Amino acid sequence: MKRKNVHVKPYLLTKKLLPENQETPIHFLAGNITPLSYFYKRNHFSYPKLMTSFFHLQVEGNVKVPRTFSYNEILSLPTKTVKVMLECAGDKRSSFQPKTFGEQWGEGALSQGYWKGVPLRTLFQYTGIRGSAKEIVFEGHDTGMRTDITGIFAYERSLPIDKALHPDTLVAYELNGEPLSFKHGYPLRLIVPQWYAMASVKWLKKISVIDGSFQGPFQAVDYIYYPEKNRDAGKYPVTTMNINSTIQQPLDLAILDKGVHTIQGIAWTGEGEITKVEISTNDGETWMPAVLQPKTDSPYTWVNWTFFWNANAKGECTILSRATDSMGRIQPEEALWNRKGYGYHAICRVKVKVE
Amino acid sequence: MKRKNVHVKPYLLTKKLLPENQETPIHFLAGNITPLSYFYKRNHFSYPKLMTSFFHLQVEGNVKVPRTFSYNEILSLPTKTVKVMLECAGDKRSSFQPKTFGEQWGEGALSQGYWKGVPLRTLFQYTGIRGSAKEIVFEGHDTGMRTDITGIFAYERSLPIDKALHPDTLVAYELNGEPLSFKHGYPLRLIVPQWYAMASVKWLKKISVIDGSFQGPFQAVDYIYYPEKNRDAGKYPVTTMNINSTIQQPLDLAILDKGVHTIQGIAWTGEGEITKVEISTNDGETWMPAVLQPKTDSPYTWVNWTFFWNANAKGECTILSRATDSMGRIQPEEALWNRKGYGYHAICRVKVKVE
Repeated sequence: MKRKNVHVKPYLLTKKLLPENQETPIHFLAGNITPLSYFYKRNHFSYPKLMTSFFHLQVEGNVKVPRTFSYNEILSLPTKTVKVMLECAGDKRSSFQPKTFGEQWGEGALSQGYWKGVPLRTLFQYTGIRGSAKEIVFEGHDTGMRTDITGIFAYERSLPIDKALHPDTLVAYELNGEPLSFKHGYPLRLIVPQWYAMASVKWLKKISVIDGSFQGPFQAVDYIYYPEKNRDAGKYPVTTMNINSTIQQPLDLAILDKGVHTIQGIAWTGEGEITKVEISTNDGETWMPAVLQPKTDSPYTWVNWTFFWNANAKGECTILSRATDSMGRIQPEEALWNRKGYGYHAICRVKVKVE
Repeated sequence: MKRKNVHVKPYLLTKKLLPENQETPIHFLAGNITPLSYFYKRNHFSYPKLMTSFFHLQVEGNVKVPRTFSYNEILSLPTKTVKVMLECAGDKRSSFQPKTFGEQWGEGALSQGYWKGVPLRTLFQYTGIRGSAKEIVFEGHDTGMRTDITGIFAYERSLPIDKALHPDTLVAYELNGEPLSFKHGYPLRLIVPQWYAMASVKWLKKISVIDGSFQGPFQAVDYIYYPEKNRDAGKYPVTTMNINSTIQQPLDLAILDKGVHTIQGIAWTGEGEITKVEISTNDGETWMPAVLQPKTDSPYTWVNWTFFWNANAKGECTILSRATDSMGRIQPEEALWNRKGYGYHAICRVKVKVE
C-alpha cells in the first residue's frame, strides 16, 4: 500500500495581503533553520521601492563624526554570523481571550536562520558616541499611513544603548549564506537577538544616536503592553521575548489512532536558555520531561523537543507543553491579557481524540 | 507615495499535510472562478498512484449490460459544461462551539469553476438500469486506513438514483478548460452540484448500481450529522449544502480607519438560489440589503455581494451577513452543533475596531 505524495508541501499562511503579513507553517516544518520560502513576513506598510539610496546608511545624531557608510564599505568590514530566531510580538495573538484586534497570528509568526553582517558597534568605532547618548534610533525605508494618527510615518524603532552595542546586534546583509531577500530587508537589516522582532528594522536607512527616549508611534503607541482595555494605566514596553513553547504535532483537535505517537515541538526564551520542557497528557495533572534536542550553536534560537506518548486509551485528551529557562522563568497557566495582544506565552495546549 | 507590492500573493492555507488538506485563501480572492492554484484540496487518504487502470471506468451492478468505458470513449461522448462550486462538508468547522475534532477548516474549504464532462446519465444509456435500483455507488482509486476501523478502505460514496441521473451530475474530465489536475481527480471525477463535495468522488474507478442503501464508512459513519456528543440518536446524512454566506472583507478583528469601507463577500445555497443578502453593522439590531452581483450563468455557484459602509464612529463594531434563498431558507443565529462538525452555516460575524 505504498503511496506517492507528489509535491505535497505547506505554504506560508496569509493573514493580510496589504501590507503582506504571512506566517510560517510551523506545524509542518521539521529542522532547525526556516527555509526562506517559509520565513514569516510581517510588514507595517507596503513594500518600499528599492532605490540607490538604500545602499547608503547614515549614522548621525549624538556621534562625534557623523558618517554615511556605503553598502560596499559595510561588506568590507569584519563580519559576524549569528544564528537568531525572530518572533513577531503578535505571535499567537489569536489565542487571547477575550480576542484582541489586529492580525490574528497563529503560532507561526516566528522563524530562524543564520544572519551575517557587521556588529553595529563596529560602525560606531568610526563615528564615536557622545557621553550623553541614551538610545539609538533605527529608521527603515518603509513608510505609510496609520489608522490612528494622520500623516505619513516611517517605520522607526529605538534600542537602549547597551543593547545596541551588544556584540551580537548586527547590521545584517545575508541570511543563510545568501544576500537578504528584498522582502526581508535587503540590502541592510538590523538584527536584535532576544528581542521581539519589531526591533529588527528592515531596509535600514538611518541610525541616529539620541539623548532622550524615542517617542515615535511604533515605540510609544504600538509595541506597548496595555493591561487594561480602556485605560493606559500600567503600560510598559515590549522588549525581550517571553519564554514560550509550541506543540507542532499532534495538531489541535486531531483524531488519532491508538498507539505510540510522537509529540514534538519547539521552545524558546528571550533571556538565558531553555533548560526544561515538560509535557502533560492529562491536562496538567502530571508532567513528564520532554527530550530536548542537543543545544545548537547559538543561544538565540528555539530548541526542538520530542516526547513519546503511548495513547492506549480511547477518548479525549488534552496535551500541554510548559518550558522553563535558566533565568527561572516558566510559562504561566494564563498569558497576561493586553489590549494590543502582544507576547502571548501561556502553556501550550492541544486537545486530541484517540479512537 | 506610490508603493510597489512586488509578488504579493496569498497561498493555500495548510490544515494537514498527510493527507493533503489545504483551504482556499477565500478572504483574499476576488472574482468568480477559483484559479487552480487556489482551489482547495480535501483528501481522505494519501494521493493514489496513477496507473493505466485509471483510464477505464467500470459500470456494473444492477445494470442490464455491464460495461467498462475507456477514457477515450468518454471523451468522445456528447459533452456538457456546468459551473459548479464545491464546498467541503467541514467548511467553517473551526467556528463550532464547543469545538469538534477533525481538520479545523476556516471559511475557505470551497472553490468553484467550470467542469466539463459527460452527464452520468449518458453512460447509463449504454448499460441500462434495472428497475429495482435504488442507489449508485462511486468508488475512487484512493484507498487507505481509518483511525476507527481496522482495514484498508477505498473512498466510496453513493447517491440516490434521482440525483445521480440529474442531467447536471457529471463524470468530469476538465476544469476551466484544462484536463483535471491530478490532485483534483484526474482523469475522471464525479461532479455533483448542490451537494457537499464529499459526493464528488475523485479518481473515479467504478460505478455500481445497487438495490439497497450503501453502508460504507464514508457514507454511514462519516458525513452524518450527529446532534449529540455521546449518542447517535437523531443522526441524519449530510447531503445538500446549507444556505451560507461569508464576509471576505473586512477581516475579523481588523482595525480600520474612519471613512467608507466596502464590505464584501459571497453567499450560496444547496437548493434554489440566493435571493437576498442582508448586512448589519450593529450586531443585528438593524439590517440593510447588500448588492448582489448579477446572476451568473449557473444556479450552482456562490453569488458575490458588496455593501458600502460609512464607518463614521470610532469604536468596536460587529458586522453580520445573512443570506436568504428561493426556498425560503435563511441563515440561523446559531448553527446546529453536531459531533463531527459538518455544515456550519450560522450568520457570518466579524468584529472590527474603527480608529
